Amino acid sequence: MTKKIQIDINSDVGESFGAYKIGLDEEVIPHITSANIACGFHAGDPGVMRKTISLAKKHGVKVGAHPGFPDLMGFGRRNIDATLEEIQDYVVYQMGALQAFASSQGLKLQHIKTHGSLYNMAAANLKMTEAIAEAVAKVDQKIILVVLAFAKRDPLLEIGIRYGIRIAFEAFADRAYNRDGSLVSRREKGAVISDHEIVVKRALKMAIEGKVIAIDGTEISLKADTLCVHGDNPAAVQMVKRMRESLKAAGVEVTPMKNFV
Amino acid sequence: MTKKIQIDINSDVGESFGAYKIGLDEEVIPHITSANIACGFHAGDPGVMRKTISLAKKHGVKVGAHPGFPDLMGFGRRNIDATLEEIQDYVVYQMGALQAFASSQGLKLQHIKTHGSLYNMAAANLKMTEAIAEAVAKVDQKIILVVLAFAKRDPLLEIGIRYGIRIAFEAFADRAYNRDGSLVSRREKGAVISDHEIVVKRALKMAIEGKVIAIDGTEISLKADTLCVHGDNPAAVQMVKRMRESLKAAGVEVTPMKNFV
Amino acid sequence: MTKKIQIDINSDVGESFGAYKIGLDEEVIPHITSANIACGFHAGDPGVMRKTISLAKKHGVKVGAHPGFPDLMGFGRRNIDATLEEIQDYVVYQMGALQAFASSQGLKLQHIKTHGSLYNMAAANLKMTEAIAEAVAKVDQKIILVVLAFAKRDPLLEIGIRYGIRIAFEAFADRAYNRDGSLVSRREKGAVISDHEIVVKRALKMAIEGKVIAIDGTEISLKADTLCVHGDNPAAVQMVKRMRESLKAAGVEVTPMKNFV
Amino acid sequence: MTKKIQIDINSDVGESFGAYKIGLDEEVIPHITSANIACGFHAGDPGVMRKTISLAKKHGVKVGAHPGFPDLMGFGRRNIDATLEEIQDYVVYQMGALQAFASSQGLKLQHIKTHGSLYNMAAANLKMTEAIAEAVAKVDQKIILVVLAFAKRDPLLEIGIRYGIRIAFEAFADRAYNRDGSLVSRREKGAVISDHEIVVKRALKMAIEGKVIAIDGTEISLKADTLCVHGDNPAAVQMVKRMRESLKAAGVEVTPMKNFV
Repeated sequence: MTKKIQIDINSDVGESFGAYKIGLDEEVIPHITSANIACGFHAGDPGVMRKTISLAKKHGVKVGAHPGFPDLMGFGRRNIDATLEEIQDYVVYQMGALQAFASSQGLKLQHIKTHGSLYNMAAANLKMTEAIAEAVAKVDQKIILVVLAFAKRDPLLEIGIRYGIRIAFEAFADRAYNRDGSLVSRREKGAVISDHEIVVKRALKMAIEGKVIAIDGTEISLKADTLCVHGDNPAAVQMVKRMRESLKAAGVEVTPMKNFV
Repeated sequence: MTKKIQIDINSDVGESFGAYKIGLDEEVIPHITSANIACGFHAGDPGVMRKTISLAKKHGVKVGAHPGFPDLMGFGRRNIDATLEEIQDYVVYQMGALQAFASSQGLKLQHIKTHGSLYNMAAANLKMTEAIAEAVAKVDQKIILVVLAFAKRDPLLEIGIRYGIRIAFEAFADRAYNRDGSLVSRREKGAVISDHEIVVKRALKMAIEGKVIAIDGTEISLKADTLCVHGDNPAAVQMVKRMRESLKAAGVEVTPMKNFV
Repeated sequence: MTKKIQIDINSDVGESFGAYKIGLDEEVIPHITSANIACGFHAGDPGVMRKTISLAKKHGVKVGAHPGFPDLMGFGRRNIDATLEEIQDYVVYQMGALQAFASSQGLKLQHIKTHGSLYNMAAANLKMTEAIAEAVAKVDQKIILVVLAFAKRDPLLEIGIRYGIRIAFEAFADRAYNRDGSLVSRREKGAVISDHEIVVKRALKMAIEGKVIAIDGTEISLKADTLCVHGDNPAAVQMVKRMRESLKAAGVEVTPMKNFV
Repeated sequence: MTKKIQIDINSDVGESFGAYKIGLDEEVIPHITSANIACGFHAGDPGVMRKTISLAKKHGVKVGAHPGFPDLMGFGRRNIDATLEEIQDYVVYQMGALQAFASSQGLKLQHIKTHGSLYNMAAANLKMTEAIAEAVAKVDQKIILVVLAFAKRDPLLEIGIRYGIRIAFEAFADRAYNRDGSLVSRREKGAVISDHEIVVKRALKMAIEGKVIAIDGTEISLKADTLCVHGDNPAAVQMVKRMRESLKAAGVEVTPMKNFV
């Protein structure tokens, strides 16, 4: 008897702020399994956090923290040369804030995925990933740390072992990959794939085979636990729906990462 | 056998921010039993929160959240007509953030005391106190809510019972009281008492007799569980030291509120 | 020979912030004569300010400052009990910031209109209006201060005279008025008029007769120099277009307030 | 007849914020000729700006803008990879805000000197210096741009010519210099010189000979228009006083940069 293939679908949500609305959270949340909720630094505010937790709960979606740099004006997308200690403090602070909203609704945080520059800088810097892992471990070792899926997984898995936390690997079906397993920079042509049919096919290949066709045409290994999707516009939401249905039709179980990571 | 008289001494700490230092936390913390730590809205930042928790832990001082309005420019001292829902969200957010730093150092929050305008507005508005109590209960019913001691305690105790949380009453030995048990406004003459000898005498009377001489000369009932002190300057710190020694000399046990509230 | 009737049409714009977009500025600006541009406290950021000035310039629309309370989370809609001195400083700061963007594009500020709570609080408090007028005078006496049109105009005109600045009165064709010339609170039923035909009729009556039918049916005097319109959604923009065309068709000259105030 | 040697002394002031006080502005301002006033992004707030302008005016000290990154938590000392356009907008915004406070007290901005990371990043990146120069030119071509004095001055002077603004070169008598005219990084030993006698001697050599002894013992050319001093503590203030007296005793005229740049 073979083990069923399982995958998680995650999306960044709860990024509205005060009078400002961003993202179709109500539309996309029903189609995902894990919600990365902004925590008030790069986006999100206390009221938005409470409402987003509530929305996720209603749809049985697991909640996670989506901490970013304290840079609302730059939406957390600008590198800030904060120290590792500052980054650790920012992660603890934001996880704690979200955790309180989760527990006040009877939920626990399933995972954490850093946002924007904090995510990209950590993806290129094991020391930073380690600082974040340590922050997670300090807050609650049951919380899963989501990191960018690379061809080389071992150093990341070792960080998880060292701090006693689980690591989940994330892939982007709508992003081109370099041969070494890194993402093609958004500044380069072809970095983002807009054809939904191709995106869905890539998602299936990632989920079932643990592989992706790199931008140079070679097939590379890329094992992902969770696929990142977007809810920016109605078309994006339709894509998520279609991806989930295609995965299901192909016999893949779409389920929260905590069930298999 | 008579029960020993017990009292807590609390102070607002952790109000530095980034490069800005405010308050002699290192000097005052050794002399108090409960530390109200700012949570990043009116003061404090993630690094300051971590260091203040660490300092309190070192001295065996219990830690509590000191949430305020999101108004760093006004240091949380300006009334903002936020809705009760917003206030509840702000309290949950800030408690959660501090809780994460506490638990990452193996501590739990003993109490919460709101700051500045959030404290004063709640003291004048039972509905707001109730919203805050509900926020506390949602996060953790073991956390004690510190409120301004009034001659009339029942409505506040009822709120505690309704939300299943403990209420601690706070008094100010260095502030004048009106006959009805409310604080004399700082705008009025004589509102703040600067003579340390008188302040210490008032502290003793509050702790031992549960009474205070109001500004009109009448003696009124004012039962306090905790006395608020300040660490703004060296003289203030000396006062705290003296107050604690005088209480001890008078047979009063100075101990964290969790031990008796 | 009779003097031609003139009126200005103003709208709050430039309220986007970082990644957050709010308001259809590109659609509404071509139909107005005066743009109230947010200045970074309640909304707006430096890039948005520059782009909004540029957009107004392209359409020949006069620019003005739209300062608010430093409360991005509350979009400047919450009363803050700042001192008059603080309010004056906030107004000077924000006017200056916008002025620099205007002058860097060869423009000058035509006017200032405070935002949200700062507007509403000032409308109910002559002392605050006076503090704002003084701030305007300090920065540049050529800048017109826009205030809520009241039946009783004299105290406001006197403030203008005292500080050597021009006062422009603003009315809302889509808002119900009380018999005393004040706006019906948004909390009350019928406060906002959604029928575009009625709104346009009210605008015409305001412009041509200087009158409005109050919510109790009585006709009251309400002389307005400028009508406030909104660009929140496509229907609102259509309404502005229609209002302007109707005013023109009725022989009213729609022109920037600086031409006649 | 020889031309008298002239030099300016500048200091960063107005960096307090709300309840937070930093720097001995009242003590140091009487001893300088040019005040770099924080503008609310990395430090400073509207009230502090007004008061600092007033203090400078009282002592006949020229005022300038001291804009930084929007990073109060990091005091503007952390590199942020903002775009050149964003940086330009931040500079325009902050200059404008300060300009309004200056003009409301009858003053004009003499100069601008960027703060912390914005200063250091620009010192290492001509494109960024050019973006800042363009911002200055857009706001007011009479405002002098203060930059780090280098052995190679030409590219900086060319930027000034291109944008029609004056460039002033700044040196630090209390900082060690590399042989190429760059500052020794603060992370290296000996980067900051604490012996006041040596600092004063270096200041004299900079002012009179346009030279400094680099950290490797070689004498290099370093022509400075203004010397940066600090008012962090009483000893620092005494140093400024002594430096100014020594310069005067040596026949150097200490005067605002606008008089000779």
